[in-house]
Amino acid sequence: MKLNIALLAGDGIGPEVIDQAVKVVNAVAKKFNHDINWTAALTGAAAIDAVGEPYPDETHEICMAADAVLFGAIGHPRFDNDPKATVRPEQGLLKMRKKLGLFANVRPTFTFPSLIDNSPLKRERIEGTDLVILRELTGGIYFGERGRKDNGDTAFDTCTYTREEIKRLAKLGFEMAMSRRKKLCCVDKANVLESSRLWRETVQDMEKDFPEVEVSYEFVDAVAMRLVQWPSSYDVMITENLFGDILTDEASVISGSMGLMPSSSIGVHTSLFEPIHGSYPQAAGKDIANPLATVLSAAMMFEDAFNLKEEAAVIRSVVNKSLSEGVVTEDLAGKNNNAYKTSEVGDWLAANI
Amino acid sequence: MKLNIALLAGDGIGPEVIDQAVKVVNAVAKKFNHDINWTAALTGAAAIDAVGEPYPDETHEICMAADAVLFGAIGHPRFDNDPKATVRPEQGLLKMRKKLGLFANVRPTFTFPSLIDNSPLKRERIEGTDLVILRELTGGIYFGERGRKDNGDTAFDTCTYTREEIKRLAKLGFEMAMSRRKKLCCVDKANVLESSRLWRETVQDMEKDFPEVEVSYEFVDAVAMRLVQWPSSYDVMITENLFGDILTDEASVISGSMGLMPSSSIGVHTSLFEPIHGSYPQAAGKDIANPLATVLSAAMMFEDAFNLKEEAAVIRSVVNKSLSEGVVTEDLAGKNNNAYKTSEVGDWLAANI
Ligand SMILES: CC(C)[C@H](C(=O)O)[C@@H](O)C(=O)O
Ligand SMILES: CC(C)[C@H](C(=O)O)[C@@H](O)C(=O)O
Repeated sequence: MKLNIALLAGDGIGPEVIDQAVKVVNAVAKKFNHDINWTAALTGAAAIDAVGEPYPDETHEICMAADAVLFGAIGHPRFDNDPKATVRPEQGLLKMRKKLGLFANVRPTFTFPSLIDNSPLKRERIEGTDLVILRELTGGIYFGERGRKDNGDTAFDTCTYTREEIKRLAKLGFEMAMSRRKKLCCVDKANVLESSRLWRETVQDMEKDFPEVEVSYEFVDAVAMRLVQWPSSYDVMITENLFGDILTDEASVISGSMGLMPSSSIGVHTSLFEPIHGSYPQAAGKDIANPLATVLSAAMMFEDAFNLKEEAAVIRSVVNKSLSEGVVTEDLAGKNNNAYKTSEVGDWLAANI
Repeated sequence: MKLNIALLAGDGIGPEVIDQAVKVVNAVAKKFNHDINWTAALTGAAAIDAVGEPYPDETHEICMAADAVLFGAIGHPRFDNDPKATVRPEQGLLKMRKKLGLFANVRPTFTFPSLIDNSPLKRERIEGTDLVILRELTGGIYFGERGRKDNGDTAFDTCTYTREEIKRLAKLGFEMAMSRRKKLCCVDKANVLESSRLWRETVQDMEKDFPEVEVSYEFVDAVAMRLVQWPSSYDVMITENLFGDILTDEASVISGSMGLMPSSSIGVHTSLFEPIHGSYPQAAGKDIANPLATVLSAAMMFEDAFNLKEEAAVIRSVVNKSLSEGVVTEDLAGKNNNAYKTSEVGDWLAANI
């Protein structure tokens, strides 16, 4: 197959982890006789530095032309403590999500048996955890009207949702539940927010179309508790943008395998695959970041964007092999001196495919 | 002293746990020669059933006339799955907060050494945890304009904050940090939200007035992770209403002592004390709910509202005694048959004062 992949390395550890995923994807392509056409493009703080804009038009065109986008991470601390900055890396991320129509962020949380003891949670709490959070990604308070009044002394943000936006996301959630354990949890704050009441109403109306799916409705604050208490009690969760931001990050630490968690964003025009760990600036340039989440995101790309399941399985199995043989970066190797460098892990994975 | 206390039992397990706090407070009053004047008032679903309104004017007048309010919990499941209900218990809670000017919800999270193994987190992660979250309680998306458009197919909610609202809450946070470990964390989403940028800007401007306080700024999604990973790294946290709702609940489960966590809400007109656990409808009427969070809320009331520290200390010490002697409800007694009833715990506490 001829596969066009847009490569957006971004900021912080983005370029380093992306490099390893490229090695692995190239090795898989060679094995299965695919012809990969990589097109690198600028994004984030790196794009601001180069062309003054975090998601340049050229990058957008490259993404639109691609069969899938492989993404690193964006964000730079020099913008974080400057509430008055007018151009920010995150704007690029939001613009990209909106322009590519990436309406559903899919974040699985599962455990690796060999890593379970890295979790801050007790083993018996997390064993068997296998959940997916579907976060709505192009609506809500991230994209509503916002601004200042009263000479800057009052600030406002607006959260807006339409029934169609909710349906589109919820439909994916119901379908995903059907292919899994048939449980769906709609997370909202319907006891306070009107937009949440529209979520609940819309999902309730859809229940009849998926009679086999057992649907529950929980408030976001209760979910923030239960995710820590009994994560294995969840299957598929659907939620709006901001709640999803918070809950997916909370969920990511419970497995103890944060550095291994991939994600995909399903879009109208294309789909995007990225590790969930972010740009982690403290580690940038040190060749110590864990590349496995990005490598597993590439596996998701083969499976979901190209429908090439065997290739995905090969990647997952070489990742498992690296874990069981201890070919891992310092976050997993612990304080002993057996840690591999980011680039060494990538080389090893590619060589073992 | 003559102490006027408004007693708002509310819904679910509220009345049962409040009863035990009343026993304890009366015993303390007897010991220290205080004259307590209790005035009970309706709130929540109970008030809707009685007078059609979750926070009746009469209740408001009773609260305004009181030196402090002792509150149980409100909420009833029959409203939760009805997105079209027009009168809801939660409206009463929000109206009460607004009309009493309860702008700061103070939620400590700490560990009880004897209960640490109840936590879903590993012991080494939570030992030494002693943090306070200050949640802004009368602003933000809870109180902004909301509604529907397009024949009900679009819903919106607005989050608004003024500099003054932020300052008032942040000042409490700085002061509390000064009396503790001198660390303050401002939690926001300033990389996306304009209201968060106003929070960050306002807190940054106040730093110079509290030069000894070490201030950090973290995004809400990162905090949702770090709270589970390293809760003991926090001291005082300040945040807006919705983030505070989610994070305080998340924090409440890490100590393993959820049924023991008290809270106070500091107001312009009065202050209110309540357990954080909510109305827990599944347990209502069974005499099994843990009353200790409400009893410890009463201790906070003696200390913070009446400035009676010795009385507060007596309550805390009898609670510790009940824990070490195993006079506890089934949530703490575990699956063996030594659990005490809610009312028995209350009787025991009162008798031991
Ligand atoms: C960087 C930030 C704008 C972004 C978000 O909040 O969506 C990030 O936290 C994420 O979850 O991808
Ligand atoms: C019942 C609900 C409106 C309330 C809130 O969200 O404030 C509750 O969750 C709380 O935290 O006191």
